Parts: sequence; C-alpha cells; structure tokens
Amino acid sequence: MTVEEKVGQLVGTWAGQLSEYKSVEDVEDEVVEYGVGAVASFGWAGAVDSRIDDVVETVNRLQEVALSKTRLGIPLLFNVDAVHGHAYVAEGTAFPNGLGMAATWDEDGIEKAAAVTATEVRKSGAQQNYSPTCDVAREPRWGRTFETFGESPFLCGRLAGAMVRGYQGDGLDDPTSVAATAKHFPAYGEPARGEDTAPVEVSSYLLRNIFLPSFLDAIDEGVASVMPCYNAIDGRPAHGSREYLTDLLRGKLGFDGTVVSDWNGVRMLHEDHLVASDHRDSVRMTRDAGLDVASVDAIAHADHLVSLVEAGEIAEDVLDESVSRVLDLKFRLGLFEDAFVDANEARDVVGADAHRDEALETARKSMTLLQNDDTLPLDPEADILVAGPNADNPIHQLGGWSVPDEAGTDIISIKDGIESVCDGTVTYEQGTMINDPVDIDAAVEAAKDADVAVVAVGENWYIHEFGPTELSGTAPDEFPNRTTLELPDAQRDLVKALHETETPVVGVLVTGRPLAVEWMAENLPSLLLAYYPGTMGGQAVAETLFGACDPGGRLPISFPLSAGHLPTRFNHFPHPTPIGPDEHLPSYDPLFEFGHGLSYTDFEFGSMTVTDERISPHGTTTVEVPVENVGDRHGSTVVQVYVTDQAGTRITPVRELCGFERVSLDPGDTETVSVPIDAASIGRLDETGRVLAIPGEYTLRVGDQSVTVTVEPESN
Amino acid sequence: MTVEEKVGQLVGTWAGQLSEYKSVEDVEDEVVEYGVGAVASFGWAGAVDSRIDDVVETVNRLQEVALSKTRLGIPLLFNVDAVHGHAYVAEGTAFPNGLGMAATWDEDGIEKAAAVTATEVRKSGAQQNYSPTCDVAREPRWGRTFETFGESPFLCGRLAGAMVRGYQGDGLDDPTSVAATAKHFPAYGEPARGEDTAPVEVSSYLLRNIFLPSFLDAIDEGVASVMPCYNAIDGRPAHGSREYLTDLLRGKLGFDGTVVSDWNGVRMLHEDHLVASDHRDSVRMTRDAGLDVASVDAIAHADHLVSLVEAGEIAEDVLDESVSRVLDLKFRLGLFEDAFVDANEARDVVGADAHRDEALETARKSMTLLQNDDTLPLDPEADILVAGPNADNPIHQLGGWSVPDEAGTDIISIKDGIESVCDGTVTYEQGTMINDPVDIDAAVEAAKDADVAVVAVGENWYIHEFGPTELSGTAPDEFPNRTTLELPDAQRDLVKALHETETPVVGVLVTGRPLAVEWMAENLPSLLLAYYPGTMGGQAVAETLFGACDPGGRLPISFPLSAGHLPTRFNHFPHPTPIGPDEHLPSYDPLFEFGHGLSYTDFEFGSMTVTDERISPHGTTTVEVPVENVGDRHGSTVVQVYVTDQAGTRITPVRELCGFERVSLDPGDTETVSVPIDAASIGRLDETGRVLAIPGEYTLRVGDQSVTVTVEPESN
Repeated sequence: MTVEEKVGQLVGTWAGQLSEYKSVEDVEDEVVEYGVGAVASFGWAGAVDSRIDDVVETVNRLQEVALSKTRLGIPLLFNVDAVHGHAYVAEGTAFPNGLGMAATWDEDGIEKAAAVTATEVRKSGAQQNYSPTCDVAREPRWGRTFETFGESPFLCGRLAGAMVRGYQGDGLDDPTSVAATAKHFPAYGEPARGEDTAPVEVSSYLLRNIFLPSFLDAIDEGVASVMPCYNAIDGRPAHGSREYLTDLLRGKLGFDGTVVSDWNGVRMLHEDHLVASDHRDSVRMTRDAGLDVASVDAIAHADHLVSLVEAGEIAEDVLDESVSRVLDLKFRLGLFEDAFVDANEARDVVGADAHRDEALETARKSMTLLQNDDTLPLDPEADILVAGPNADNPIHQLGGWSVPDEAGTDIISIKDGIESVCDGTVTYEQGTMINDPVDIDAAVEAAKDADVAVVAVGENWYIHEFGPTELSGTAPDEFPNRTTLELPDAQRDLVKALHETETPVVGVLVTGRPLAVEWMAENLPSLLLAYYPGTMGGQAVAETLFGACDPGGRLPISFPLSAGHLPTRFNHFPHPTPIGPDEHLPSYDPLFEFGHGLSYTDFEFGSMTVTDERISPHGTTTVEVPVENVGDRHGSTVVQVYVTDQAGTRITPVRELCGFERVSLDPGDTETVSVPIDAASIGRLDETGRVLAIPGEYTLRVGDQSVTVTVEPESN
Repeated sequence: MTVEEKVGQLVGTWAGQLSEYKSVEDVEDEVVEYGVGAVASFGWAGAVDSRIDDVVETVNRLQEVALSKTRLGIPLLFNVDAVHGHAYVAEGTAFPNGLGMAATWDEDGIEKAAAVTATEVRKSGAQQNYSPTCDVAREPRWGRTFETFGESPFLCGRLAGAMVRGYQGDGLDDPTSVAATAKHFPAYGEPARGEDTAPVEVSSYLLRNIFLPSFLDAIDEGVASVMPCYNAIDGRPAHGSREYLTDLLRGKLGFDGTVVSDWNGVRMLHEDHLVASDHRDSVRMTRDAGLDVASVDAIAHADHLVSLVEAGEIAEDVLDESVSRVLDLKFRLGLFEDAFVDANEARDVVGADAHRDEALETARKSMTLLQNDDTLPLDPEADILVAGPNADNPIHQLGGWSVPDEAGTDIISIKDGIESVCDGTVTYEQGTMINDPVDIDAAVEAAKDADVAVVAVGENWYIHEFGPTELSGTAPDEFPNRTTLELPDAQRDLVKALHETETPVVGVLVTGRPLAVEWMAENLPSLLLAYYPGTMGGQAVAETLFGACDPGGRLPISFPLSAGHLPTRFNHFPHPTPIGPDEHLPSYDPLFEFGHGLSYTDFEFGSMTVTDERISPHGTTTVEVPVENVGDRHGSTVVQVYVTDQAGTRITPVRELCGFERVSLDPGDTETVSVPIDAASIGRLDETGRVLAIPGEYTLRVGDQSVTVTVEPESN
C-alpha cells in the first residue's frame, strides 16, 4: 500500500450537511481519489439519507465505487449514531434514549435492544455504531445527560457492557452485528457549568473511580472501538493526548481495538482548545496520541497526514499500526466477503414488528413512577383530558439522536396510546408548546369536564447543548438551557391552571434529564417519569397509567431540588462538619433520589444474607434476599445493593451501587434474589489500571438492611 | 526533654466554649500537667476573653504558670483568628473582611492593614495569627468566600504575600510582629456543592495553577506557618496526607516552618472523613503526614502521641523535628526574652485612632461602584431615607470572624456615617431584617418624603457554612444558605417597594459573597458594593455615596446571574463549540465581571507598551500605560494586565490576571503606570513544583489593548 492508500483507510467522510454539504458524488470522488475508507451517509441528523430505500441505495453505490474504482478495492466502513435504536432512519425502531434504558435496570433487556439495533443498522449497510456511551452523568445541566445511563458508574458500566454484547453479538462476523464504540473516553459527563464539551477538571481519583469503570466494562466485553471525548481533562484535550489514548487506554486498560475520533474532535485542538497551531499540527497531535481513524476529517486530514509522514514528523510505522487495526476490523466484520446489503431485507428488518415489540417492552420497563396517591392506575372507563406539549409530539418523544421530523415514521404518542387503552372519552388540548402557550384556557375548560387530566410536560428534541437551532426548533436562549432545571413558564402555568380545576392532574415527564419539579411533586397526586421513551413510548405510558403495565423503572439519576442544589448525587462523599452537626442543611437532599421508583403493588424484602462474609481481593460473595409480592397485582422491583467502606486512606462515597437485579413477581409469589458482588465491584481502580479491593470491611446494604463483608489481604 | 515534654510543645488547647467548655483554670492544669505549649484564650468566637483588659490578664496569668510551674519553663504561644484585624476583641480594629480587602487591589495598603493587626494582636499577648487565607474562591455558594481575596490566583497570591509582610514585619523578633499562617493548604475554595469542607476533587492541573500559586507567594515572603485544609483533594484529607504536607509543601514548594492543624482537623480524619479508625489512628496519620502542632486537639492528642511513640509507631525523630521547629519559632518571636504583655500598652494600642484611620482608608479603597446613572454622588443637602437590614447593624457590617455582639465596640454604621456627612434630613426606617420584615410600609412612606433612598441589603454575620446558630442568629434553613445567591424575599420586597415610590433608590450591598441581584441591577440607578467593610465601614460608605471618596474598588470576584449559572469566572477555559458557534448562550456571562468597578471621574488609557517583547523563562518585562484623569474629580482606577497564551499542549484560561497597579489621580493629571510582569507570573507550576513559563507567545492585555510577548527557550 502507498502512504496515500494507508492514510485513506484512516480517515472518514460524510454525505450530507455538516460544516459543508457533501453530495454522494462528492463522496464517490473522495473514495476514488483519496481512497477514503469510512463514510457516514446516514444515521445522523444532517445525512443525505434518512429513508431506508435511499440509505441502502447509497451504501451499495458507494461500496461499488470502493470495490471497483480503487486500486485495492477495500470495502468501505459505514458508521452511524444509532445510540437508542436505528432512530435516524425514519422507518427504524427507536428505543428509549439512554436514561430511559438505564431506568430498566435490565442488562438482558438492554442487550436485546442493542441486538435489535445492530440488526437494523447492519442490514441498512452500516457496520460500526458510535454507541454505547460510557459517560457517567454528573451534571444534569449538561445537554447530553439524556444519552447516558445516569450517575452510577456501576450501572453505566453494566449497561454499556450489555450494549456491547448486544451490538457485537457472537462476534463481528455475525451478519447482524456491528462494531460497538465506547465513548467518550476518558471523561465527558461533568463539564464545567454543564456546558457541553467544557473541561472536566476532576481529580485523578474521580477519573479512575467514577469515569473509567464503565469503559473497563466495555473493554472487558471486547468493544471494537473507543472514541475520545471532545473535552480536556487535567488540561489535556483527549483527542490530542497520548497519556489518555495510549498510555491509559491501551497501556493500563488493555484496549486493543481502533480509536476513532469524535466528529470535529481533531480540528477542535486548534480551533477551540488552542493547543495546536493549525490543522496540520492537530493532525500531528492526534496521531502522536494514538488516534486510528479521523471520523469526518476526510481529505484535509489525509493531506496533512501524508505530508507529516513524508516530512518524517509521523513515522510510517504509526500509520501501519492503525491501518492494521482498521483492516482487521473490516476483515472481522466480513466486509471483504460481502460489503453490500439487500434492499428487500433491509425494508423487512428495519422497524419490524418484533423490533417494535422489543422497543415497547423496553419503554414499559423504563416507566418510573415518582409519586402516587392512588390516582394511578386510572380507571379504563374514566374520561381523560390529555394535555401538554409532549402528549402528542412524536419528535420530542424520541428526543435527540433521532429523525428530527415525522415524515415516514410510525410513532405512538402518549395521546395515541391513551386513546388505544382508554374506554372513556379522551379529549386532547395541547395547552402549550414547550415555551409558548397555545390555549391554556381551552385545556382548563376541558379538564373541568374530565375525570382526570394527564399532562405531558418536559423537554423537546435537542442534541449537545441545545442542538443546532434549525434542528431543535428552539432558540439558544429558550428552554432547554442549562441555567435552570425548571420547566418554562408556559408549562408551569398550564400545570397550575389544570391543578386549580380540582380535577386530579397526573403529570407525565417526557425529558432527557432530571427537572426541578418541586411544585409538581408537592401538588400533583401522581407523577410519572417517561424519559424520552422512543417509538412505542406513548403506548408504554398509557399502559402504565391504566395499570396494564406496572411501573418497574427506577431512577438512574438523582432529581435535584434546583440548579442551585447541584451537584446532587447519591454517591457523594461524606459531609464533614467541622463546626457542629448542624452545619449542613438537610434540604440539600434530592427531590427524588437515585434508585427511587414506586410500583402499583407492594414488595417485602426478607432477611438479607451473603454467601461469603470473608472474600479475597479477587473473590465474589453473593447477596441473597427473598422478595415477596405482598400486593394484589403483578409487579416489578429492583434489588439494589450499595456498598460503603472505610478501607484505605482515601475518602469514599457514602454509598456506591455495586449490584442489582430486577425481579418481576405475581401477587403472593416470593423469589430469593441473588446478586453476585465481585471484590472488583466494591474495589477501586488504582494508578496502574488494576481494579483492587483494599483489604478491610465493606458494608453491603439492601434497603435498610446491611451485612458486613471483609476483604482479606492477599495470601501469597 | 522527656517524650511528654516534647509532645506538650506539639499540642494546643483553648479557654472557652468549643466542643466542651474549658476555663482558664483548666488550661492552667493542662499547662502544668501536660506541658501544653500553645493556647487560644482569645481571638475566636467562643473564647473566654473578648475585652482587652481580660485578654491581657489571662495571657499573663497563663504565661506565668508556664514559666514558673513547668520543669522547663517554656513560654506559651498564643494564637488567634485575627483574619481582618483584631476583630474578636471588642476594642480592636476590624478591617474589611478578605473580599473587601481584595477589592482595594492595593498591596501596600493590605500590608499596612496587616501590620496594624499584628501590632494589636501582639500587644494583646498573641504571637501567631491564623491568617492570611491563600484560598482562591471558586464557588460563591461556599460560606467562606468572604474571607478570601477572590477568584484570581494572582491577586490572592499578591495580597497574601502582602499580609505576610505586614504580619511578620522586619522579622519575628520585631515586638509588633506575629507569625503568619498561610491557610488552608493545598486547596479549599471549590468545595463540592459549595458545602463547607466538602472535597475539592479538582485535577492536579487546577491544583497547581489555581490553588498553589498563592501559597508559593506566602512561602516566598517567609510565612512562618502553614495550615492544612479540612477537606480532601484527590481523595486525600489534607491533614492526613504526607503527599501534601511533606512531599508537596516541604519537598516541592520549599516550606520550612511549622504546619499547624486547623481546629478539629485531626479528629475529622476518623469522625468525618472515615479514613482513620479512631482518634489514635488520626493522630498517627497526621504525624506521618508531617503535622507539627495540633491546634486545639490538646490532651487527648498528647496522650495518643505519647502512646504512639512509646509503641514505636511514631519515631521520636519525628517529634524532635517538630519540636525543633516549634521552639525555633518561639525563640525567633522573642518569647524566651519576654512572654508578658503590658495592660496599659495594650489598651492604648488596640483600637487606636491611627489604626481606625487605617481601617477607614482600607474600607474607602474597597468601595466598588457596580453601576451608576449619575444619582451618585449624592448632594450633601439632600434629604435621605436610610433603610435596610444592614444600614445600622454593626455586627453584620463586620461579618464573621469578629465579635458577634456590640458590647464594648465602637463601630460606625452606614446610618452613622450618612448622618455625619449629610447636611440634609436623614431618616432611618429599617424596613426589614435579613429574613423577616419589620415595617416595609413605614420605609415606603419615608421614601416618599425623601430625595433619595439608600437601602443597605445583604448578608448577616456568619462563619463557615452559616455559622453555629447561636452565633449567626440565623437558623440553618434561613439566609444565607448556599442553594441560592438571591436576597431573601423580605429584602427584595423592601427594595421593590422603595423603587415603586419613584424616589431614586441607591442600593448598598453589605455582603461577603457575590449575590444574584439582577433585578436590582436592572432597576436601581446606582449600586454600591461595600463587602463587609469593618469598624469604619459606614463612614467609608457614606463618604463614597456623597462623593468625598471616589469608589476605586474593583471586583475581586465575578457576580453571577444566578446559582444556576455557576461557575461564573473570568479565568474560565475556552468554550469549545463542536457543533457550531451558537452552541453556548451569551447569557452565561456574569452580571458584573471580575475587575469591574466605576469611578466618579473618567480615565483615559494611552498606548500600552512593554519594555521587552522577548524575555527568557526567568525574565521580566514591564507593561507601561499612560493613564489620564480626564474627568473633573480626583479618582482612582486599577490598571489590570491579563495574559492569554497558547504555549504548551494544555488548555489555558481565556485570560488570567498577571499584573495590576492601582493609581490615584487629580483631574487633568497623567501618570504612566508601570506594571512589571515576571515570566513566572504568566507561567505555570509544573509537576515538580517549579514555576515555568513555557516558551511561546503570550498576549498581554490592558482594556482593549494588547501586546504580544515572546518567552524564548532557555539558552544553555
């Protein structure tokens, strides 16, 4: 291979509207002239194609060019942002966004969702998915909170691992698998001011113990790729840092796949971070750091890289190592066998009924009942007013990383769902859009005639900070923005006006992040958190409201009282009180805590035991707890095991999640739930990248029960 | 010396109400029986003595015991918290609290203030002052913001250095000097949630470049002592960390004085941080870490330390090293010459007129005019309504670390000050207390009859989080608390009601932290920030309002729009914008920015030049800029030099303060202001503790002018 051919394999390009518009013909030229090895022509907001027939046609056309019109005939790798299902293709199946998936606390379910996604993506012609996110959400003002699995490093890691299994299936040669991409390495989820891509200047102790564990889980599952974060940590932008991308990721954490840039991540080094002097210097930095593929940096990156190699500033060995990884991935994916996709098969697979059923099941499991005074479940005969900006808005219901318009979609809104399950009269009055009232009076009048008002409020579609305006439909100074977590005035006005009618008002939150809804919590009888529930979300909401489905979702993130109370996290460090026990306000507690969620039935937990009270630093004990459904309905709950320790000379969180198991039981049934707890799960990542349980005592808690387990020193 | 005698020199005790009450007799017993070497019997909130005659009597009585009733007759070291003057003695002179001192941007003035404080403290019988704070305030919800010099590491360092010079004078043998104590090492000012003493889990890059520089300045000035912070950084509570107290502080930063614990800092290791198993273990950890003196841990600490030495868990060499430092300090302080103080001299010195004049001068220089539409300065003939909770409350005016009641004080309140300088009718209606209205209607009626209403709002006396309730007079769930930076409803109601009278309302903020006063900024013609201005503060406020004094203070900290906008800092890192230039809201800017402040006159800056455009990594260049007073009044301004650099591979702040000079000019006068800029001031602290200016280009800015300076590589 010539240097140019090698470099071609290390850059990707796009078809659609990004910083500039590129047509499919433009991409063809780049493939022919530069041997560009990766393409994004669908699966993101500005892509040329978002309908399945178009998607397949473009993919096959470009593969044909790569195979027949380049000297080596290396097939293209297509990559997509299918982070919650194949949601950037209109006909595709959208699962709940990340936070909703996390609320299921269901590894098997998430693995299935990822497998469905992989099938739809792969049959559409892409082989790499820029998912899962391993980011731990530590700042709800951050606009990417909705994509994450929440604030627990353990929950994030388990679900990221499950997604990798689901995406990669039995191996990348499986024709329904895609290469998974763990992102955004090493730490993204706690940007200063909540400002997207702002620095995450946390201590190395937090970096290791909060942000890295979920990446370790993904690596353990054999994740094919890792994507660096846009931001800087300890002053170093990840895309340009050999410390992170090579020393830490490959050296200490043992990753051996491809490192692929985030879009624009290379150029940001000189354009935003100002640590490189120009684009060429940025390319040099990223290659020194250990980047393999520049995702959409395309031709300009390729030219600079060739020039750097020719000038001896980048060794050709460095190229060879990256090319070897890229070709190995394409080979393992079977691209050299068959790079093409079948339009009929794609049409059948994408959005298939079985997939929609899976999306519905995931959405059902995510439903999180924050509070309820027996207004829920609703009587199927009741007359219902459905109101609010998110009651019948499919795009808001999908949330970001989904098609931004309805054309070609088949999405069940909350209104649709309620109409399908309610035998009473269903009236719909929107009342207000996200920021601007429509007709609150009409909603009030309708509420007076209804037995119950269901008001679906929350956030709109956005990505990153608040999304490009042309996509989010929201001006940057409108909601959502990150200076407040409260609903806009229009929505609060609607809820208050409905409440004043004295018709019971059930609040449904369609949102990608915790909102400061103290007034609603204090005044409404019932509050259901639906997250961004995806294609079938409205059906899941309706079934939950009417009791066909028990709300078994549990919060994967704390709900703060206000932005002024941030950070509000379950796994905070102890509150030191140097001048007296009353020094800190109890009101700094959350509005709803991590792990919270109500069921329609009641569960009783029997005595908690562990199989082993003394374990080695590499051992496992199992928490066992009998769970009985003592109510009169089928329902689900999650056994959550938290650990507190005083081992070692560093402070540790007041509690950290270290194990969980979701359980569903019929009335009267009892199941003894077993939750294995590895020493590694209660240990910490040390400076060398090892996970280590420091010898000492660890208190494991389930509810208000606790058992102490001793990690014994290594005997050698 | 016996082990017990050595240990005695390494512990301190207290007389007064702390966790338990100790009488002077109790302390006598401890001195006799344990040889306790340090005592705090005045100079803090719960001390037995707060009147100068009592103070001196107790000191002399205890010194007599130490000299005559112990085998070795080693004199006692008395320590105080005289952080803004001798404010815990009723007759003492209280300067503005830290943030107000910083607003003067006046190193010489702060040095003088510290010298006055040292004289009063020393003549009262104490020889060590637990000041200056080197903490950089990065979180205005934090209750100790008012004690700091604000958010600029450079300003904090310069003023901390000036205080050390003032306290320590020409040397500790100077009979008007005291040993200074740089606190709280290494990083305290950015606790999670703003919660006092919560962990500061920042990156090592921030630790070095934000928090350490001010300690380096104090060390460069020969500071006698350093106090660790209560909190943990990188998981390690400072009091128990050899990494911080020995490796970093002594090893890398070259400190060679005594390390003295913060009160309760030792016990917190097992009581709060849970990194030690019990008190004995905490003592062991602190001694391993490098602590010399346990400030108030007293007898229990001594017993454990003796036991640890006897058990061989702490080497006697470790004791010897600490004892040597302590005795050296006592010797250098001249205590072995004369440990006693003279009651008459103390009475003359403490609160002397010259000292009060100095406090007045400092307060005048701190006055920061945030906005003004020509309502100020006021006409001396005008009829004035004076209102608000802080218009006539001497204790709130002092702020924390001051006597919490008025007995024996002579404090000029704002009302007093206005009455003394105004020739019109002065009416006073409080209107409201901090949280609770008194009679807003009466204030409104009085405002209608006045030409101008001056309303002094803000915060009360508090320390740490909100202070022990019995001292702050404020219940923990009342204002101030850290979930909002807005004034309590009562105060906002008062201001709005006065504003509605259409009588011009001048707002005066008596506060220790930035408050979210957007409504006042939008609606009131004039807003003066007085900080906690100290003994003479009301006089300074009045002189400023009526124009006898030009408001030359400049903000040492940013005023955020709301708690939801935090952090709001002038020296933030660049905003990366991966998906477009509009990604971040302009409204994330501050309400009033760092360095802001108006004068009554106008200044014009001529062309900015530098003496050297190319400097070595150890060189200096000087910024020169002609400043002309083009208005018609005498006035002051501050030439502020900011640096922006792109040197190195780590991100750097959009701007960082690197030099300043306050200048006062008569109308028509011009002065060319010279501001020396060391390479060190624009450089960064590296991992080894060296301050290094990385070769490259540095842009220096004054206002909207800039000059680029090149740091050249070391030639060798």
